[in-house]
Amino acid sequence: MSWIDVLSKIVEVFPPSDAYRFDETPPLVAPRPAENFVVVKPSNSEEVSAILKFANEKSIPVFTRGGGTGLSGGAVPTEEGIVLSTEKMTELEVDADNRVAICGAGVTLKQLDDAAFRHGLSFPPHPGAETATVGGMIATNAGGVRALKYGTMRNYVLSLEAVLADGRIINAGGKTIKNSSGYSLLHLLVGSEGTLAVITKATIRLFPQTRDMTLLAIPFPTMEDAMNCVVEVARKMLPMALEFMEKRAVEIGERVSGERWVSREGEAHLLMVFESFDEAEEAAKIAQSLGAIDVYAATTKKDQDRLLKVRGMIYEGLRKEVIEVLDACVPPAKIAEYWRRSNELAEEYGIELITYGHAGDGNVHQHPLVYEGWEKSYFEFRKSLLSLAVSLGGVISGEHGIGAVKLSELEELFPEQFELMRQIKLLFDPKNILNPGKVVRKL
Amino acid sequence: MSWIDVLSKIVEVFPPSDAYRFDETPPLVAPRPAENFVVVKPSNSEEVSAILKFANEKSIPVFTRGGGTGLSGGAVPTEEGIVLSTEKMTELEVDADNRVAICGAGVTLKQLDDAAFRHGLSFPPHPGAETATVGGMIATNAGGVRALKYGTMRNYVLSLEAVLADGRIINAGGKTIKNSSGYSLLHLLVGSEGTLAVITKATIRLFPQTRDMTLLAIPFPTMEDAMNCVVEVARKMLPMALEFMEKRAVEIGERVSGERWVSREGEAHLLMVFESFDEAEEAAKIAQSLGAIDVYAATTKKDQDRLLKVRGMIYEGLRKEVIEVLDACVPPAKIAEYWRRSNELAEEYGIELITYGHAGDGNVHQHPLVYEGWEKSYFEFRKSLLSLAVSLGGVISGEHGIGAVKLSELEELFPEQFELMRQIKLLFDPKNILNPGKVVRKL
Repeated sequence: MSWIDVLSKIVEVFPPSDAYRFDETPPLVAPRPAENFVVVKPSNSEEVSAILKFANEKSIPVFTRGGGTGLSGGAVPTEEGIVLSTEKMTELEVDADNRVAICGAGVTLKQLDDAAFRHGLSFPPHPGAETATVGGMIATNAGGVRALKYGTMRNYVLSLEAVLADGRIINAGGKTIKNSSGYSLLHLLVGSEGTLAVITKATIRLFPQTRDMTLLAIPFPTMEDAMNCVVEVARKMLPMALEFMEKRAVEIGERVSGERWVSREGEAHLLMVFESFDEAEEAAKIAQSLGAIDVYAATTKKDQDRLLKVRGMIYEGLRKEVIEVLDACVPPAKIAEYWRRSNELAEEYGIELITYGHAGDGNVHQHPLVYEGWEKSYFEFRKSLLSLAVSLGGVISGEHGIGAVKLSELEELFPEQFELMRQIKLLFDPKNILNPGKVVRKL
Repeated sequence: MSWIDVLSKIVEVFPPSDAYRFDETPPLVAPRPAENFVVVKPSNSEEVSAILKFANEKSIPVFTRGGGTGLSGGAVPTEEGIVLSTEKMTELEVDADNRVAICGAGVTLKQLDDAAFRHGLSFPPHPGAETATVGGMIATNAGGVRALKYGTMRNYVLSLEAVLADGRIINAGGKTIKNSSGYSLLHLLVGSEGTLAVITKATIRLFPQTRDMTLLAIPFPTMEDAMNCVVEVARKMLPMALEFMEKRAVEIGERVSGERWVSREGEAHLLMVFESFDEAEEAAKIAQSLGAIDVYAATTKKDQDRLLKVRGMIYEGLRKEVIEVLDACVPPAKIAEYWRRSNELAEEYGIELITYGHAGDGNVHQHPLVYEGWEKSYFEFRKSLLSLAVSLGGVISGEHGIGAVKLSELEELFPEQFELMRQIKLLFDPKNILNPGKVVRKL
């Protein structure tokens, strides 16, 4: 890497370290990081522009990194090159009158949440890790549990500042909800995982704070019963969260959180959060009429937190045993069918699969557990599983992105789209320096 | 047009007529339609594919047409070629369990509204004309009065079937709210006004039906007072509609509708619609504390319709006197400033400007009235006006699109973006056959 001396005249250069080598992708499927790379920490878009101009001239790969909480290997530096960390781009200003936050790409979810809260506003999405950054959440179109009511990250981004591969700085969108002013470069960059441009700043929409919440925990005899309830509730109202867990997932959540769930009976459990008590009451009636074993309501924050912790700790409990975390999305009314057929498929391969997820929006998290000789048959299983999701009207990733791990599924299941994506990549990044090998393959 | 005979072997060909020559763009600024063109009415994507394959081979322009209700000349056939009307693509299926409608591009807003209603669901956006089509609303990312709470058309499109210039049929998205599966071709096509592909089918998200509505009509002494109220209300809640009208707009609406507004006092009037009576009550208190002249609540549908009619008929009353309908979008807290400075600018040019719009989302409708010698100075005025909107953090069109009428503003105010859009256009439509001359210029 003979170019390091020149680069260090543009920006301070740090040596490689494990903190920049990995993201949270389970190690068995994570891409192999390069031995050698450097880390830079630009403070603003002008510095990013200078770095990219240099990298583009010399054809040096640039791996943009936010919080490193991704689950698809998107932030892993897979070639010798530059890791561009956004950690110093933490400017954060809340414009409460216009209900927006202007954020540097490196602002964390927690910082944004706190700032919104201090101004009497809120940032509804909650894609899990509080150390996720605004830039990273935009780059993967992050989702989380509140997408049914409030949408995914895409719905929050009103404008973007980004730097193109050749160093040009562009601004797309405005401080407005509406925009019909030509092709949406903004929405092309949302979800592009650092492969089309480096996002440096964003205007993020904030919402009024939510009012008193009511949480319902509802065990059902079968997954079909639970999903019938999901369908009926979602036809009548938009809960803030509408989660499901199969029984084994509940048991794992209980074990790791040390909290007791409401019941151990039943094959499937729902967890619903409402902003209105009337809606919770109506939903409880629907659940009872559709065969719920019981309906437990938690109205105090303490009780709610206890139950949410069971749901929130499931992945923690599985982390060391899983091959990876799948997140196909299917039409909500197809979840039960997808779940049954997934399990049948898993059984054929002798795979144990733990399932739970966001029932309201159809986003199913599936954890295949490691087994002897997994590397021989697992990827074939995964391809069948994701094909099943697509055949039911779904998509292969609801919120984790393609990253380094799902390229071949994207290419095989959507060949025409993949070809268009490759051409768009070539247009934005002709030398293929931006996060090469992620989302699309080299042309 | 020597190719007509060959085309008529692919699809029935109709002669040109005025019904396909114009859209609803005010005549003074509308682009000049071609004398000669043919009309085709394909029934499905295969027929569209065959037509485009032929047109692409022969380099014949294709102007896709939905309801023809656009206000930016987007549907006007400006060159000799083919008008591709979607009027026969009216397949419509509601999947109530998944809360979506699968619509042919030619399904009208009214048909979609009615179908959703019959299934106990609703399609919240209401971009004005009920004869607008799903394809057209997607192509312009239509907005309307409910965008503050429910978002613009972009938020409703879950998947698209579209035909590329060379006849390839693509499917983007799924029957799901979440999707992080590569670059969003779907969101690139939303708002592309028929210039990148022909949209043939879409999966549209439906919502639970709204409950009892309360409408408030509130006159304020000044525009600043009214906008302070807008800002405070929107910080606390998401009304279904939050509209404003300057006094002259109210007077015009009264005259045309034959209905009486609540008051003729005050410079600015707000109209707010809430789905919860409690919220309406809280908003009324905020208005009173911020200097409202009075607060009128309408709880019966009859009273509400009467007041909404005043707002709804303003454009009707101005139609014959306006040069065009502007729809810049500014940050909501900047509306009062934008309004004052717009009027100062208009005065400099001797232009009378009637203003009203969607206060909650900052989308300002401005109607410059025709004046003697307007064609000499008007376009300079318009450029200054749209620059002002952008300088305040806004965008040049909130919902009407660029079409044939705002290319030069887009190009001058956003040169880097314009260049990228041109390149994207070239990638999707290398022979420039799809709605040529709209959104971007020929490369």
